Amino acid sequence: MKEGKMKVVVDAFGGDNAPLEIVEGAVLATSENQNLTVVLTGDKEKIYSILGDRTERVEVVDAKDVITNDDTPTLAIRQKKDSSLVRAFDVLKENDDVVGLVSAGSTGAVLTGAILKIGRIKGISRPALCPILPTIKAGKGVMICDSGANVDCKSEHLLHFAIMASAYSAIMSGEDNPKVALLNNGAEEHKGNELCKQTYPLLKKLPINFVGNVEARDVMSGDVDVIVTDGFAGNVLLKGVEGVASGMSKLISQEAKKNIFSMLGALMMGKFRGLKAKMDVNKYGGAPFLGCKKLVVKTHGNAKREVVKNTILQVVKLHESGLNEKIEALVSQMTEKLGDVVGGENG
Amino acid sequence: MKEGKMKVVVDAFGGDNAPLEIVEGAVLATSENQNLTVVLTGDKEKIYSILGDRTERVEVVDAKDVITNDDTPTLAIRQKKDSSLVRAFDVLKENDDVVGLVSAGSTGAVLTGAILKIGRIKGISRPALCPILPTIKAGKGVMICDSGANVDCKSEHLLHFAIMASAYSAIMSGEDNPKVALLNNGAEEHKGNELCKQTYPLLKKLPINFVGNVEARDVMSGDVDVIVTDGFAGNVLLKGVEGVASGMSKLISQEAKKNIFSMLGALMMGKFRGLKAKMDVNKYGGAPFLGCKKLVVKTHGNAKREVVKNTILQVVKLHESGLNEKIEALVSQMTEKLGDVVGGENG
Repeated sequence: MKEGKMKVVVDAFGGDNAPLEIVEGAVLATSENQNLTVVLTGDKEKIYSILGDRTERVEVVDAKDVITNDDTPTLAIRQKKDSSLVRAFDVLKENDDVVGLVSAGSTGAVLTGAILKIGRIKGISRPALCPILPTIKAGKGVMICDSGANVDCKSEHLLHFAIMASAYSAIMSGEDNPKVALLNNGAEEHKGNELCKQTYPLLKKLPINFVGNVEARDVMSGDVDVIVTDGFAGNVLLKGVEGVASGMSKLISQEAKKNIFSMLGALMMGKFRGLKAKMDVNKYGGAPFLGCKKLVVKTHGNAKREVVKNTILQVVKLHESGLNEKIEALVSQMTEKLGDVVGGENG
Repeated sequence: MKEGKMKVVVDAFGGDNAPLEIVEGAVLATSENQNLTVVLTGDKEKIYSILGDRTERVEVVDAKDVITNDDTPTLAIRQKKDSSLVRAFDVLKENDDVVGLVSAGSTGAVLTGAILKIGRIKGISRPALCPILPTIKAGKGVMICDSGANVDCKSEHLLHFAIMASAYSAIMSGEDNPKVALLNNGAEEHKGNELCKQTYPLLKKLPINFVGNVEARDVMSGDVDVIVTDGFAGNVLLKGVEGVASGMSKLISQEAKKNIFSMLGALMMGKFRGLKAKMDVNKYGGAPFLGCKKLVVKTHGNAKREVVKNTILQVVKLHESGLNEKIEALVSQMTEKLGDVVGGENG
């Protein structure tokens, strides 16, 4: 456990609710953790007009430009040098006391910036995005790694995803041996596409609690803690779940409108809003981009202050718990055991 | 439109509710369509004990063995020659007046039997399973092709899936130019894994109404009619949707139990059951295995008589509308246009 003062840099102009909700979330985070200083990047005047006199443990780095979802990520990171996101990566890279970055901006730009500006942990060839999905067990989430950063994968990459997400899950849940499963089209060991068939026997050799295959229909059961998959299938899973939840919500509203007892209808809809909150991925904070030299966490584009605060405090927790050191240790154990198979493109 | 008498063979011992619900479903189908004769395969005595004197336009072919989900599909099809499923494939293969097969049994065994016993339409290298998912637009479904028969795919296969599912969707919906989309991790043309990037420009050249990429979150919107994807991602999508719908159903029940107004709670649950029925994939009938020389339709393992009846009548509709002839015509148009790219492994 690392304790003491630290800084987290926050892209104040990323996301649908920037800068107001981002700045307010940052202020909330500093008031919950006295060791924390937040560095906000973006238009200085606008940020200060929101902050007013609440400047204790809040620093501001001016940046006049903004990267949007319409920008091509690689071009934007290379060319928009005065954007709030690129400035945030500069702050993260150049300062030892800044331990992580939070952005609600373009996912592609955040991932590209992390790779180009911060780089990978030794031995990890492909950092991966690892959001949490809710399950039907109260308070319990399941991590999906990778969920879209790497759409074409080899076994080696899935092994890296497995150890990184296992370390991450252990920190977030406090459980020592999170259950790690492989997303597959059947439960039996021999099932799957070529990638799954090659990866399954190797996962069994890792220093993690690998429990076998999981089918997409059991993802929300809460029986496993981490689901390992290539980024294409992970993205289909994550967005499919979002889509059904939102589709069912619309259907239920339609049903409620048909109901002649309007009060009953309204009650039902209220009930469902509560349920929707329970199912809501955002409340868990953000999705870390696992495998970068420093902590980079993407929070949802529509995140409001509470979620922004949670995401910043999530970075603090991951830093204090030594996530990256744990990943490094697991990678070297893995390399010892599996040798060439998982050498990594850079390691 | 082909009219006149025809037969459909039904595996009476496949699925959780066999033989009772299967036999009853077959009887219902014959009474709705006077041109239809159903051939039931399975233990003759048990089938007749259910049928009683309702034997008009019902034939029975004896089969003492049953293939279960625990059997390895290839071994089972090869070795269990006296199983209800293998006998059903024999009947389908050997009789010109038998136009299609329905089974609620092991999906793997049905697919394997179709390939080994019936074979593929000329030019189609990989038949594909094509179930319908419900959408939020009333009465409108979306077809997912492939949903698990082919877990490793090349562009050529996805092109075949696209034309087969387009022809199928046109028949089922009555719309001439169903909208066909490619499942992808982003909406823009350049998005996707290697498979998607290679397939996208080829899909644009097909004689179908290709409308671009669709993300998993928009699957239930009802904006597109057919979603083309490799069988691994299709399986993740299909089962993911099933899993969330069932997970949310459990959560809603939990919420309802907490409610102090028990009547309100009960009403809510009743409301939700109606909704669940609306969301239920089974009511659409079965999932055809597109691209086989004769019609093969897999219905859900827990199908009851109504669904079995719908599936049998679906086979009649597909036969009368000339699905396979339409697929053949599209394949030859495609081969003319794209040449070597889509030559097919058997074409």
